[in-house]
Amino acid sequence: MATYFEQNRASFVDGLKSFLRIPSISTLPENKPDIRRAAEFVAAELRQAGLTRAELIEGEGNPLVYGEWLGAPGKPTILFYGHYDVQPVDPLEEWKSPPFEPDVRGDDIFARGASDDKGQTYILVKAVEGLMKSTGRLPVNVKFLVEGEEECGGEHIERYVSSKPPQLQADAAVICDTEMFAPELPTLCVGLRGIVYTELHVQGADHDLHSGVYGGAAPNPIQAVAEILCALKDREGRIHIPGFLDRVAPPAPAERQAWDRLPFDVEHYTKKEMGARELTGDPDFSLFERVWARPTLEVHGVRGGFTGEGAKTVIPARAVAKISLRLVADQRPAEAAEQFRNAVRQVCPKGVAAEVKLLHSAAPSLVDPGNPFIRAAARALTESFGKETVYIRSGGSIPVVGLFDRHLGIPSVLMGFGLPDDNLHAPNEKFHLPNFYRGIEAVARYLEFLGR
Amino acid sequence: MATYFEQNRASFVDGLKSFLRIPSISTLPENKPDIRRAAEFVAAELRQAGLTRAELIEGEGNPLVYGEWLGAPGKPTILFYGHYDVQPVDPLEEWKSPPFEPDVRGDDIFARGASDDKGQTYILVKAVEGLMKSTGRLPVNVKFLVEGEEECGGEHIERYVSSKPPQLQADAAVICDTEMFAPELPTLCVGLRGIVYTELHVQGADHDLHSGVYGGAAPNPIQAVAEILCALKDREGRIHIPGFLDRVAPPAPAERQAWDRLPFDVEHYTKKEMGARELTGDPDFSLFERVWARPTLEVHGVRGGFTGEGAKTVIPARAVAKISLRLVADQRPAEAAEQFRNAVRQVCPKGVAAEVKLLHSAAPSLVDPGNPFIRAAARALTESFGKETVYIRSGGSIPVVGLFDRHLGIPSVLMGFGLPDDNLHAPNEKFHLPNFYRGIEAVARYLEFLGR
Repeated sequence: MATYFEQNRASFVDGLKSFLRIPSISTLPENKPDIRRAAEFVAAELRQAGLTRAELIEGEGNPLVYGEWLGAPGKPTILFYGHYDVQPVDPLEEWKSPPFEPDVRGDDIFARGASDDKGQTYILVKAVEGLMKSTGRLPVNVKFLVEGEEECGGEHIERYVSSKPPQLQADAAVICDTEMFAPELPTLCVGLRGIVYTELHVQGADHDLHSGVYGGAAPNPIQAVAEILCALKDREGRIHIPGFLDRVAPPAPAERQAWDRLPFDVEHYTKKEMGARELTGDPDFSLFERVWARPTLEVHGVRGGFTGEGAKTVIPARAVAKISLRLVADQRPAEAAEQFRNAVRQVCPKGVAAEVKLLHSAAPSLVDPGNPFIRAAARALTESFGKETVYIRSGGSIPVVGLFDRHLGIPSVLMGFGLPDDNLHAPNEKFHLPNFYRGIEAVARYLEFLGR
Repeated sequence: MATYFEQNRASFVDGLKSFLRIPSISTLPENKPDIRRAAEFVAAELRQAGLTRAELIEGEGNPLVYGEWLGAPGKPTILFYGHYDVQPVDPLEEWKSPPFEPDVRGDDIFARGASDDKGQTYILVKAVEGLMKSTGRLPVNVKFLVEGEEECGGEHIERYVSSKPPQLQADAAVICDTEMFAPELPTLCVGLRGIVYTELHVQGADHDLHSGVYGGAAPNPIQAVAEILCALKDREGRIHIPGFLDRVAPPAPAERQAWDRLPFDVEHYTKKEMGARELTGDPDFSLFERVWARPTLEVHGVRGGFTGEGAKTVIPARAVAKISLRLVADQRPAEAAEQFRNAVRQVCPKGVAAEVKLLHSAAPSLVDPGNPFIRAAARALTESFGKETVYIRSGGSIPVVGLFDRHLGIPSVLMGFGLPDDNLHAPNEKFHLPNFYRGIEAVARYLEFLGR
């Protein structure tokens, strides 16, 4: 089997390139046709891999791709999850090669979606294909559910999974959408942050005003956004939303100690990986706690007023800020959104009206490292990479983990092969090809362990 | 003469419409050709009005239009100033009629530039034309200088005026770019605020970062802009820039008392004119003092991050805010800019680098109401409108007033015919046609007074 995987690396990369060439950006309406092309590409790949069913599930929103091979009665059933949609590409001018023309430079393949999540989704497909092609069958039953709204917070998968369709019954989910802690260090992610993504709409006067004539008397909605942001998060990075932090569960002492043992170069992380001058954030908590186990409030953009070339002396009538809260166990999205709404109301300055619109949300999750599906995954990774698997958390949000837990009652194994410097959601996203090859082998090995 | 002005109102409006149809937006590079068309339109109008010279002055930037009639030896020389360029039109969707298709509705003509400043510049042209057509000559010597960079802070006029060209020699300037305090209340503006217009560039990491992965550790440049804005201006509207307020000269008690006597409906001003819920600003000062005699700090727009449809979970690498300071006598632009720069440096939060770029600046001005050119203007206005002329200030900035003072040594008479609800710099800009007609008559009458 190893031989098959080794012999076919070039064709795996070719297939991945075809996947990456589809600009399946789910937040932009103009890319709707590409979304469908990407879904159909995945279904065709699943058929080609030897699955007995592979089809699009239509509904409100972007199609889901469902696939299955159920030829191992009495063996466990694994539900593989990935997503075929990608983030927008702006600022386009910072890409060294066009985001939808995959470019291999050294050991990396550069393209939007290379790591998040087309490259990782493709690992799952190729692991299954490799087992089918080399042994004619799979050691366990396998289902695929690949969605197209992960990056835009779409609700198609939530509606589908929450309807508890019998065909989704499984013993565990495997999600390939996280990263390894360090190159060649096999990693399982056991915790994810949740998210509440909002738009803050602030209205001042009912029309734009001349800042000379009315400056000193007119409410300024952008200044109001600034005041709300500063009232809710102070200069030290502490969040001030009444009640918001009450449910935050601190990590267990053993978990904190394991984090302290992780190989970590804070200088490299700050300067090279992030490209930052220095780290920020609540000084009462360690770095790993801040990015994995503490909630955040971040502003992603402010629209309103004049931002073109040159000078325009306007006090805008309105401003819109995109603001998210990251949540950790045991915070609850609906409650957090309500707390945020109330806090905005309390700190909103005079002269303006503020309204919070909820765009999407997801619960945080934390899984038990003692679970047998997690233990088998750790063993497969350890054998494939030749190193002890470490357990980490991720600061990101994978809403489907909460969905699978809540509606299907199954744990999720987060077996990720990205790297910290993959430039997710940013220009020059890349995927490390050695991880791509070993990832395919590790997933195949995992299925073999589960089948014994 | 009155008969001529009354008989030709329709043709005055037709001519103004032709002027307004030219989209001479000076901040947008794509409107360069329209800028030239507008300059040539003004020169042609001056020739048609009977001036003996009318030509474009070329140089770096948009052309100046110069015109003259010097057939009254021994009489004073008046330098008329106006500008043919206009503000951008966004948000376009809020215009009830297209901004460059002038539309007369009731007593108003709606178009970008109707009041600021094409309609008012046209008053000057038509006043001269009327005198020439009806009497064959002018009672005083007249020069015109009409610029095309008023709305973009261009420096062509500054370079030209500061070279002290002999042809600009005059006894006083007349500037038609301000407003009447109330409908049918003849008004002279004796004070203007200056301005320092800047861009604040804030750089965090060197690339956009995923807010899940790095949120809690990464510097957020938009949050930094918010922190800088809030540190420099508090919730009450008080500005905190060290040294910035030191030179602010309080208005004389007599001027304050005159302001108290102005006919003013604060409810109408707030709700109807501004369309606001309530007034804001430093509570230690009266409304008129806040908008006329106190400096301001206003943010006009913030660029950076994701502002498109939907959700993108990015911590942007950089953000740019457009921020202006309005200045009052006796503040100095260069000093104020430096104080702002220093203050930004002091309050800039950790993890980001902030840089202030100066886009343009202008000194504040305050003229003596006892000046004979001001007194004659007050009399002409009083007779044309049948009401006592009031003296006010304007919160806006007309940089040329400072230029004329400094380089030509002449006072400026700010004889404005706009109205407070003309929507300057905003959608649905308009000009009140009765003011247009009476303004032409008042300027003609003013020249007659000066010629006696």
